[in-house]
Amino acid sequence: MNARANLLQIDGERLWATLERSGEIGPGRAQGLCRLPLTDADRDMRDQFVDWCREAGCEISIDRIGNIFARRPGEDETLAPVQIGSHLDTQVAGGKYDGILGVLAGLEIVRTLNDKGIATRRALEVVCWTNEEGARFQPPMMCSGAFAGVYDADWILACEDDDGLVFGDELQRIGYDGKALVGGRDIDTYFELHIEQGPELEADNIPLGIVTGGYFSRGMVIELKGENAHSGPTPMDKRKNALVGAAMMIVAANDIGWQQHPPGKATSTRIKVWPNKPGILPDYAQITLDFRHPDKETTLAMEAQMKAAIDECCERANVSATITHTWEFGNEIFDDECAALVRSTAAELGVSCRDMVSQAGHDAYNMTKIAPTALLFSPCKDGISHNESEDIELAYTTPAVNVLLHSVLARANR
Amino acid sequence: MNARANLLQIDGERLWATLERSGEIGPGRAQGLCRLPLTDADRDMRDQFVDWCREAGCEISIDRIGNIFARRPGEDETLAPVQIGSHLDTQVAGGKYDGILGVLAGLEIVRTLNDKGIATRRALEVVCWTNEEGARFQPPMMCSGAFAGVYDADWILACEDDDGLVFGDELQRIGYDGKALVGGRDIDTYFELHIEQGPELEADNIPLGIVTGGYFSRGMVIELKGENAHSGPTPMDKRKNALVGAAMMIVAANDIGWQQHPPGKATSTRIKVWPNKPGILPDYAQITLDFRHPDKETTLAMEAQMKAAIDECCERANVSATITHTWEFGNEIFDDECAALVRSTAAELGVSCRDMVSQAGHDAYNMTKIAPTALLFSPCKDGISHNESEDIELAYTTPAVNVLLHSVLARANR
Repeated sequence: MNARANLLQIDGERLWATLERSGEIGPGRAQGLCRLPLTDADRDMRDQFVDWCREAGCEISIDRIGNIFARRPGEDETLAPVQIGSHLDTQVAGGKYDGILGVLAGLEIVRTLNDKGIATRRALEVVCWTNEEGARFQPPMMCSGAFAGVYDADWILACEDDDGLVFGDELQRIGYDGKALVGGRDIDTYFELHIEQGPELEADNIPLGIVTGGYFSRGMVIELKGENAHSGPTPMDKRKNALVGAAMMIVAANDIGWQQHPPGKATSTRIKVWPNKPGILPDYAQITLDFRHPDKETTLAMEAQMKAAIDECCERANVSATITHTWEFGNEIFDDECAALVRSTAAELGVSCRDMVSQAGHDAYNMTKIAPTALLFSPCKDGISHNESEDIELAYTTPAVNVLLHSVLARANR
Repeated sequence: MNARANLLQIDGERLWATLERSGEIGPGRAQGLCRLPLTDADRDMRDQFVDWCREAGCEISIDRIGNIFARRPGEDETLAPVQIGSHLDTQVAGGKYDGILGVLAGLEIVRTLNDKGIATRRALEVVCWTNEEGARFQPPMMCSGAFAGVYDADWILACEDDDGLVFGDELQRIGYDGKALVGGRDIDTYFELHIEQGPELEADNIPLGIVTGGYFSRGMVIELKGENAHSGPTPMDKRKNALVGAAMMIVAANDIGWQQHPPGKATSTRIKVWPNKPGILPDYAQITLDFRHPDKETTLAMEAQMKAAIDECCERANVSATITHTWEFGNEIFDDECAALVRSTAAELGVSCRDMVSQAGHDAYNMTKIAPTALLFSPCKDGISHNESEDIELAYTTPAVNVLLHSVLARANR
């Protein structure tokens, strides 16, 4: 322990103070946050983050879709940088740590190196990705995706939220429509620290998870077409009620999730209906579903089962349906060498850790496509996230940040 | 036929021209109308209607909730008036005749009497009730309800639409916040002509239905409470997804409707979900259901069956639910004497007619509570309504308006 005590360590209290300041910006209904991307609250948090990074001597660059890169130059600026990133946006009823911890841990690492006057061979970049949650503009993780070449930046700029507001307009409105091109440059290593969003680390009293893979997730948006008619006189056998068809599909998806439980899941969180008024049968509905299982083949089988259920529900509800959009994630390959580095660093620091699979999507998933990537988890209370009561504890968080610090140093000094 | 040809008749072409002019105000997406109450389109239609009525010599009065009364004075102004009313608002995707025919038929009757210089003993009032459809402010038929003492006018003025806009503010905005008290005066007789909104008259080639009663309808608003959580890691058995619970209830209601088909119906047209975003399980949902059957006991049994289903769905979806609002209509008693008058008038004019029950709600339902009331139906094409393709034909509409004219005259000259 004495040898370890001499090792470079982050200032946990300082990290905590930044988290607490962040927790004041964009309050939710309860104790959490509602900091949707490209809102005033998002701008205020970005301003605060940029101020902090400038105070820490970083150079700020912002790309065309609002991703922020706070760069601490390296000794050899010709080398590709090491990035530490995550996101500062939240769900509508989100917590104070999801994503935020990962960005502010990066800032804390820069501050710690500054305190000790430690230079690195490669530059470090603390990254804030725009709109990870997908709570306002879909899909989630879109801007790390664009950086990694998965999406086109112009397509993102044209995306609309549920009120018809355009991503590019809103980005300009908050002053984060940067000039930098999106992606297209070499990244040496990408590190992301995130809260686990599950109960396993806390249950086992382990402060660090090393993500070796993800649940395989398949998602779909389904549009249903029915026919407007009076809800009074129209007999049951003449009705083409798009809402009824959508409800049948939501129930069918839920049943499929239960058939694969545990560990499989099927989810529906979102529905749009038109006209959605009393007295008139709706002629349109749109629902969003996703299916997750650690085994890719099982996820694909769940999806196939859903497709059969869609046909059956259409027949029962006398409506038609189209799958208008699909996506998948979770078959990403995290870097073995980086995982081994994190594992050995943890051993060196006396931090117990375990390998895990991630059940949620993260910006790191996209980054695996263009850089060796390590995704680290730290515990959260009762596994609760995407809920305003999300919580973490400093003592169970600091060890993972110290492992991150030394892992970053090792990669940055290569 | 010759004797009948000498009888007073309305000018069908003139009625048609007013319907066509109305059909230009507040166009929908297709060939129909989107003329929601207290919108600019509603104001424009009200202005047109008031202009027409003033040109026809009527005195206009508007009450505190925007109901318009166009009065053609009688010879004895101490007597209670005979009213001919319906509504000028439409569904979001509505037709050009639902309600509108009833109001403009009243105007046509006034014009016809003016042409021939015919006075009546009692005054006639052509009435436009505010917000019959309930497409913007719920419940439907609220303003005839307030006139009949079912609702409080101040409660109506405080109602909000889905965007949080307040009825009273919107009424003032369009300039129809009148000074007249709501109701509280004697009405001798209330007549309403409405399109059938069902296929029976057309199928039997009968131009006039005399409504003797209504389907008994019970409605409910259900609020579901669940819990926000991440849609990824949260296992199926820990989820409290309010949308899933709501979907189960919509399917259960639909099943109950089918069990009573024909002639029973169960309907869900409306759902609200919060946050209704990807990635987060919704903790709130609200659905609106209704059950209809000509037999009151069967409707009540359907409602009881739904209440049991609500409990079962809550258990399955791990959520809680509360019925926050209920309503009923259809046990109204139309006036036998007025129905007999309409029947004998039809016979006199050689117009074939049949008794019917109404499957939809109408302003006339409220008026039965305070005045002898007659509700007349005329055919609509394929029974289609609350759909932009709603259609009627002049030749199949004029006979019912002529029966209305002579029935009104008989009551107004008592």
